[in-house]
Amino acid sequence: MKLYSETKKAEFKKAGKFMYGLAERLYPICRSITGNGVRQTLTILSEFIPLNITEIQTGTKVLDWEIPDEWNIKDAWIKNARNEKIVDFNKLNLHVLNYSIPVEKKVNLNELKKHLYTIPEYPDWVPYRTSYYQRQWGFCMPHSQMERLPEGEYEVKIDSTLGPGSLTYGEVFIPGKTEKEVLFSCHICHPSLCNDNLSGIVLAVKLAELIKSMNLHYSYRFLFIPGTIGSITWLSRNEDKLHNIKYGLVLTLLGDSTPFLYKKSRQENAGIDKIAEYILSKREGTKILDFSPYGYDERQFCSPGFNLPAGRLTRTPHEEFPEYHTSADNLDFISSSNLEESLELILEFITIIEYNKTYINLQPKGEPQLGKRGLYNQAGGHMEQKSVRMALLWILNLSDGSHSLLDIAVKSGIEFGVIVKAAGKLINAKLIIEKASSNINF
Amino acid sequence: MKLYSETKKAEFKKAGKFMYGLAERLYPICRSITGNGVRQTLTILSEFIPLNITEIQTGTKVLDWEIPDEWNIKDAWIKNARNEKIVDFNKLNLHVLNYSIPVEKKVNLNELKKHLYTIPEYPDWVPYRTSYYQRQWGFCMPHSQMERLPEGEYEVKIDSTLGPGSLTYGEVFIPGKTEKEVLFSCHICHPSLCNDNLSGIVLAVKLAELIKSMNLHYSYRFLFIPGTIGSITWLSRNEDKLHNIKYGLVLTLLGDSTPFLYKKSRQENAGIDKIAEYILSKREGTKILDFSPYGYDERQFCSPGFNLPAGRLTRTPHEEFPEYHTSADNLDFISSSNLEESLELILEFITIIEYNKTYINLQPKGEPQLGKRGLYNQAGGHMEQKSVRMALLWILNLSDGSHSLLDIAVKSGIEFGVIVKAAGKLINAKLIIEKASSNINF
Amino acid sequence: MKLYSETKKAEFKKAGKFMYGLAERLYPICRSITGNGVRQTLTILSEFIPLNITEIQTGTKVLDWEIPDEWNIKDAWIKNARNEKIVDFNKLNLHVLNYSIPVEKKVNLNELKKHLYTIPEYPDWVPYRTSYYQRQWGFCMPHSQMERLPEGEYEVKIDSTLGPGSLTYGEVFIPGKTEKEVLFSCHICHPSLCNDNLSGIVLAVKLAELIKSMNLHYSYRFLFIPGTIGSITWLSRNEDKLHNIKYGLVLTLLGDSTPFLYKKSRQENAGIDKIAEYILSKREGTKILDFSPYGYDERQFCSPGFNLPAGRLTRTPHEEFPEYHTSADNLDFISSSNLEESLELILEFITIIEYNKTYINLQPKGEPQLGKRGLYNQAGGHMEQKSVRMALLWILNLSDGSHSLLDIAVKSGIEFGVIVKAAGKLINAKLIIEKASSNINF
Repeated sequence: MKLYSETKKAEFKKAGKFMYGLAERLYPICRSITGNGVRQTLTILSEFIPLNITEIQTGTKVLDWEIPDEWNIKDAWIKNARNEKIVDFNKLNLHVLNYSIPVEKKVNLNELKKHLYTIPEYPDWVPYRTSYYQRQWGFCMPHSQMERLPEGEYEVKIDSTLGPGSLTYGEVFIPGKTEKEVLFSCHICHPSLCNDNLSGIVLAVKLAELIKSMNLHYSYRFLFIPGTIGSITWLSRNEDKLHNIKYGLVLTLLGDSTPFLYKKSRQENAGIDKIAEYILSKREGTKILDFSPYGYDERQFCSPGFNLPAGRLTRTPHEEFPEYHTSADNLDFISSSNLEESLELILEFITIIEYNKTYINLQPKGEPQLGKRGLYNQAGGHMEQKSVRMALLWILNLSDGSHSLLDIAVKSGIEFGVIVKAAGKLINAKLIIEKASSNINF
Repeated sequence: MKLYSETKKAEFKKAGKFMYGLAERLYPICRSITGNGVRQTLTILSEFIPLNITEIQTGTKVLDWEIPDEWNIKDAWIKNARNEKIVDFNKLNLHVLNYSIPVEKKVNLNELKKHLYTIPEYPDWVPYRTSYYQRQWGFCMPHSQMERLPEGEYEVKIDSTLGPGSLTYGEVFIPGKTEKEVLFSCHICHPSLCNDNLSGIVLAVKLAELIKSMNLHYSYRFLFIPGTIGSITWLSRNEDKLHNIKYGLVLTLLGDSTPFLYKKSRQENAGIDKIAEYILSKREGTKILDFSPYGYDERQFCSPGFNLPAGRLTRTPHEEFPEYHTSADNLDFISSSNLEESLELILEFITIIEYNKTYINLQPKGEPQLGKRGLYNQAGGHMEQKSVRMALLWILNLSDGSHSLLDIAVKSGIEFGVIVKAAGKLINAKLIIEKASSNINF
Repeated sequence: MKLYSETKKAEFKKAGKFMYGLAERLYPICRSITGNGVRQTLTILSEFIPLNITEIQTGTKVLDWEIPDEWNIKDAWIKNARNEKIVDFNKLNLHVLNYSIPVEKKVNLNELKKHLYTIPEYPDWVPYRTSYYQRQWGFCMPHSQMERLPEGEYEVKIDSTLGPGSLTYGEVFIPGKTEKEVLFSCHICHPSLCNDNLSGIVLAVKLAELIKSMNLHYSYRFLFIPGTIGSITWLSRNEDKLHNIKYGLVLTLLGDSTPFLYKKSRQENAGIDKIAEYILSKREGTKILDFSPYGYDERQFCSPGFNLPAGRLTRTPHEEFPEYHTSADNLDFISSSNLEESLELILEFITIIEYNKTYINLQPKGEPQLGKRGLYNQAGGHMEQKSVRMALLWILNLSDGSHSLLDIAVKSGIEFGVIVKAAGKLINAKLIIEKASSNINF
């Protein structure tokens, strides 16, 4: 089996550049929870991965929700009294309140201000605002610009449509040797925002592309969905498959430079949580958060009726960096090398997922004689090869059906990779067998 | 439902004054585990609350014990050689060893000293001593006075009786909507001691008076009983009702000024323990102690054969303040405002007891759409109303039948009051129902 | 019952001297996992304790292993070109690689060095090395000596035999009132090493001698076995008895002067683990280690198929003191007083094992009236005899069938000895009975 450890450094570098380049292509598109921006995005992703695109019709009931009208937008601007465009959707799509109803009229400054969104604390940045379920129109602009607006008449135009159509999402399924699945999910509903949205998308694309050719044990599923309504839609249409999901990870905010942060699943001690704790404990400055019912689509995956073993991987969490949901979350805020490092980390998750099996010691009474099987350094008494020898002993001692290789790595303090290699030797020596394939009750 | 939160500050002040005034009335009475002092005390309490008074005859078997002879006392003194009363029961009832047999004789100093109790460390205070089950006579006096006693003849008289009669206790039962009970217990067997004994009594009276008019969910029971023999007597006669007790609290030492201390029930994780931990965690300097089989009547309630969910609430614990069981535990040692603060705290317990229900999310798959029910701030993306919104999400996420509202408050870090209000909104929106009234198995 | 507490200080001193003297006698013998050195050792031990000696024939299958050829050695040396013995087995038996095949030939320096073992870090010490299962010959010598060896021809001779014979081990079984057993095990396979090997042997001899005359509740078994192959052999022949073992302790490295260290059993919360935690918590500088599948014969006792409640008691653990497995682990490295202190500590284990019963409170509803049984200080209110009174209350409160006396000592913070005495009073008063002899389900 070829996995992460054999991937060369140069390939990672290349992957980082690819992901950043893809983010650059996707950045200008005006995405939302429905509409052509999402379709355009998925079409680009299809160049690299075998994406199944699903369209769900406006008005369809999905769990407690309903697919809303589709939103599309061609143009939007504010003109001042001298007919100059002072705000232009074509320059930055964040300028329009996402899901704005169409509007075309003249308003005085007072009236205009009721429809303006700014960030007083960061007067040069444009905020990102949405109004999916309450029909209104609005513009977002720098606070400093708003403060300088003179009295007078303004012309506003939003050339948008809201009407029948569909919600669009993409899905990649890579079958493995078992039906049991690993789920990766990212949201695709944000317009020109990089860390939030694009970093998760480009990582998921690269991961899907890599895994496609890896011939793995688990099946892997990647969801490219609008936040909230998208996960609710997907869940409502796939309830019968959810029992297959053994590990889940929501990917977002993975392009900035802070250390990794993992938010636990609602189960709090699921396999994915244990793996995250192990991997992050090896890296300085990382953090583990308990589950909370807020954030990204883990809210839906971990609702009590589904309670999937799904955590969330980010770097700086949302609402803890000022650039969050502003024009400052742009292509300068993420980097190729950060994306590369995130990819490497997620491949560590996959490595452990793939190798973390539970074995049964077939010679559980006393230690088996390792020496006669060539597994023991014969000249007893000195310390060489101690780590491998210890790994053999730990695996034999704890392979009673209730400890996985990861449990053994944690308990012994020996690297997971060394444990896996030692387990391989014990399998070859017929001293352990995989629990799943045994009929042994210990 | 009207509870603590709506009670006005002025009412608390009035309640504090009432309680202190009641303590002043009760202070001079010579109480013991039996006798007229207890009856006189209960008669006064009857002015304020619907007290059922029970008399249990001398010699009655109660569990492993037997009701002892009733003790009554009219007068007691020591006279010196010049016929001057140097110790006078009528000035301070602590001067007599509680449960002294009658005596009237002349003794020399040497003989007298065998019957004197003092506190060398606090030479001006009179100790409180008892001898319920070993028949003897004695006097308590300041150590400094004893040291100055000249040689010579002394006349001692204790005009007491020990004989057939009964043990007396009082009980208030305020039925609620359910048979399930909350038990408050205080001891009424100490003579002129304020923090120990009177503070618990006056608080229980005020609480019973308040609860009487509150129309609550739980039934409330207040016991005014002699320590040890009283709780044993009550338990022996009420074994068939004990299963109804869901929360219990022994009240004493609540008039001094130190921060609150809660001693856990023997179960150590009973509902009352969780509530105490939550409430005390909000106040500086408070302490939680593990259960130990010593102290007040929690010893009996938490004996292994009953193991009731009953903790004990005090401020400074007994034996940790020098005034304990001395004449210095007098009306100056407690205050109206301390009693007021204790009342407020106990009403917080009752608030949580009453509101701490467990609910079932009726839309557990994915988040229900709060917006269409008017429960969500429609303009997504900014932070206002965050605490209420978070409370809604936490309740929905954890209302799987295994988390009470208090559990949710603790886990989310959101104030219990906010959680209760949010739960009210979800009940109105038919998104959750009380577990007790549902047939849902989650 | 006479136990440790009544043993006089002078007797301990005498015992320490006896143990050190026995170590002196055993020190020169060349032990290995088989052979006459082991037999000679066991013959000496038989002078003091009723030792059953078992011989298991070469080639016998024992679990996954096979009894190897028996090894015996008469002489061994290296002579230099001037026919001087520069290394002499008769001066120190560590000079020969343990289990060396016979050899007699002339070799040049280069060839000789391939068969030499030294310790560069401690150039004056001779290492202890073995090669039980790989047939080779070799010598161990000080590194400084090896470095000074001139070029030239050397004559080597090892007058050893490897062939049919048997593995030898000794066993003492002291029946108690119950079939339930306490197992002590020590290894007897090391040649001239004192802390490793001899300290455990002499302690086990002294313990067995003491226990023999103590008429105890438990049965006690002492194993004097070669490491690894010995415990595997014993386990393979005694599988039907293992269920009787309630406590097990591997004894070794108990002659040096560092504080005690206990390594937990694989169960990690077995009775022996709790006792060790309690005893070691009372002594400064002691340590408790989690189980690991490395070390001494606890590796075999705690293999997953047996999983016996067996821990290991040492002072400095192996591989943490430089003298380990070198000529510096000699008679100067251990002392009579260290052995004496170790004996005292192990007798504390036995005291707790013998007395740590679980009782049932026969008056579990309310506190029983201690006063009428003479168990309570009648003059209530002051603090004397508080510790005994508290012990009585703790035992009554926790004797619900799920707390042993040790559990009660730990929970109450009262000395185990005080708890035992208080339990005695309650037994006499018929307030508690031993759980084992009751039919009560609480």
